[in-house]
Amino acid sequence: MKWEDKKLHLIDQRRLPHEKNWFECLKKEDVCFAIKQMVIRGAPAIGCAAAFGLVLDAYQSTKKKWSEYKKDFYQAADMLSSTRPTAVNLFASMKRMIDLSKSFIDDMPHLQVCLALEAQAQKIFDEDIASCACIASLGADYLAERFEKKPLRVLTHCNTGALATAGVGTALGVIKALHQKALIEKVYADETRPWFQGLRLTAFELLQEGICFEVLADHAAAVLMEKGCIDLVIVGADRIAKNADTANKIGTYCLAVLASYHKVPFYVAAPLSTFDPHLETGSQMVIENRPEKEVTHFGDVAIAPYGTKAFNPSFDVTPAHLIAGFFTEKGFFPGK
Amino acid sequence: MKWEDKKLHLIDQRRLPHEKNWFECLKKEDVCFAIKQMVIRGAPAIGCAAAFGLVLDAYQSTKKKWSEYKKDFYQAADMLSSTRPTAVNLFASMKRMIDLSKSFIDDMPHLQVCLALEAQAQKIFDEDIASCACIASLGADYLAERFEKKPLRVLTHCNTGALATAGVGTALGVIKALHQKALIEKVYADETRPWFQGLRLTAFELLQEGICFEVLADHAAAVLMEKGCIDLVIVGADRIAKNADTANKIGTYCLAVLASYHKVPFYVAAPLSTFDPHLETGSQMVIENRPEKEVTHFGDVAIAPYGTKAFNPSFDVTPAHLIAGFFTEKGFFPGK
Repeated sequence: MKWEDKKLHLIDQRRLPHEKNWFECLKKEDVCFAIKQMVIRGAPAIGCAAAFGLVLDAYQSTKKKWSEYKKDFYQAADMLSSTRPTAVNLFASMKRMIDLSKSFIDDMPHLQVCLALEAQAQKIFDEDIASCACIASLGADYLAERFEKKPLRVLTHCNTGALATAGVGTALGVIKALHQKALIEKVYADETRPWFQGLRLTAFELLQEGICFEVLADHAAAVLMEKGCIDLVIVGADRIAKNADTANKIGTYCLAVLASYHKVPFYVAAPLSTFDPHLETGSQMVIENRPEKEVTHFGDVAIAPYGTKAFNPSFDVTPAHLIAGFFTEKGFFPGK
Repeated sequence: MKWEDKKLHLIDQRRLPHEKNWFECLKKEDVCFAIKQMVIRGAPAIGCAAAFGLVLDAYQSTKKKWSEYKKDFYQAADMLSSTRPTAVNLFASMKRMIDLSKSFIDDMPHLQVCLALEAQAQKIFDEDIASCACIASLGADYLAERFEKKPLRVLTHCNTGALATAGVGTALGVIKALHQKALIEKVYADETRPWFQGLRLTAFELLQEGICFEVLADHAAAVLMEKGCIDLVIVGADRIAKNADTANKIGTYCLAVLASYHKVPFYVAAPLSTFDPHLETGSQMVIENRPEKEVTHFGDVAIAPYGTKAFNPSFDVTPAHLIAGFFTEKGFFPGK
């Protein structure tokens, strides 16, 4: 993700790894499309993209001062907030932009509004880079000590790397930092049906980093755990409730149950912006259902017979008691 | 699968559900290809197909009597046996053909040899049809009583229907029989990565039968169980050891762990030919590793970046203690 020349440039993740195309966002509608259609995905990344979506809207406006533009701004924030329902970083990012706007005076010239919003979006972006770096470093230190500097066999799910954040990533950031300490024996990357984030995106990043890895069908994780081939599981998160229940990519809860059964420690890596202070438990989370076609088709090619219905929640909720702990930019917090 | 005009006709399961092509086997090599390349799959079905493969070889031979043909026959049996290593029905079927051949006298005219082998292959085929019918009927009766005639929400994995057997199927046969009793509320069919047997083949059969169903990414089964949407899981088997450890399609062990965690009963439906009297436990089973391309590609289209390695065992072993019971043609046997 790049903010350059007053445009937001996103690597089109629908085309990776075989085509690396930049998707250019010139207006907020482009950003909405990009988030909804998963040109960009990953909880921290969509938070950053949406913030720049508001900046684009401001720069596009012909209004002269804040009192004239204010209504459009809130509508734009609503539109961007409604692109996807589960990841809280999106709402946290919109809230920070709105909170800033509350300091604007009615007569504030529009260019000044634009510059202030742009600076705030850039700050959200830069903070995510810094958070990722901290999570990676603190997480790798913790795991190095916890496993006595043994090279680790790590299982991960979905993509939680540079493509999912503004920085090095969350769970994949920790893996990269472990690799820099020569503490990765092998990464097992769940393919992550139905969108293949693991097979397409995590594999892409792991190859780039030169980290030894294999992909697998998601359910085959059970076999690896049963054979004692997995030292730990680490995943990202889309929303974490006050009781530490964690929403993340569909398949995470399955992995957490498998990890619990096989006594493999299960960790979550996420910035503090993923923690939702307004939700008591995971049961209150809104889980997005994605189009059935994501399961029944490969791109536009039908795999299932016509008329097949699919159950396709995009996320699931892992209860806190299955989680060994959380890596954040402020350090490690044990699960329950 | 049809045996007609001294040829074996197989529906090409690589093309289903969008093309229904018949793959014609004229010689044993065609049958070997069909089994290895999964033109036909499913433990009982490949047992039947391999038996007809031996019949094709016999009809193709120009030898005059059994003493001249015998060596070729054993070589053909070896070749067919080595097509896939895990499903025991293949070896059981070859053993029955060989056992019959032991009654042949050296001077037995070749046509008589052919007719005897053909009759034996037909018997194996007919017995599989009968076994499926019994498993379906006894299984449905058992479940109707066990769940007090409540319409059931059943989760299944892979394809265990008419495409996997000579008859109505094993686990899917039980589901069809329950449907005939109006005791199916809904079937949830795991898509069954990487080969999509559920998404392509089970969906195809369920649509044909008019049974209400949804497909899902395999790991999403955990969410359905957690929400209390699954009354029972029923799967087929490729090999069952003396201690009741059960090899079946990769993903089965994952499901069994999830079912155990969520207290959902987990059943296996299989003919007695799937029980291997020579194996004490599942740990002795040979598990086939399939080509990495099955995971990393969709057909010939690469999904993963070039250079991606994949872990792709075709089967896994579910320990007996996770299995509530077995439906066979001789009735129900409880698990351990």
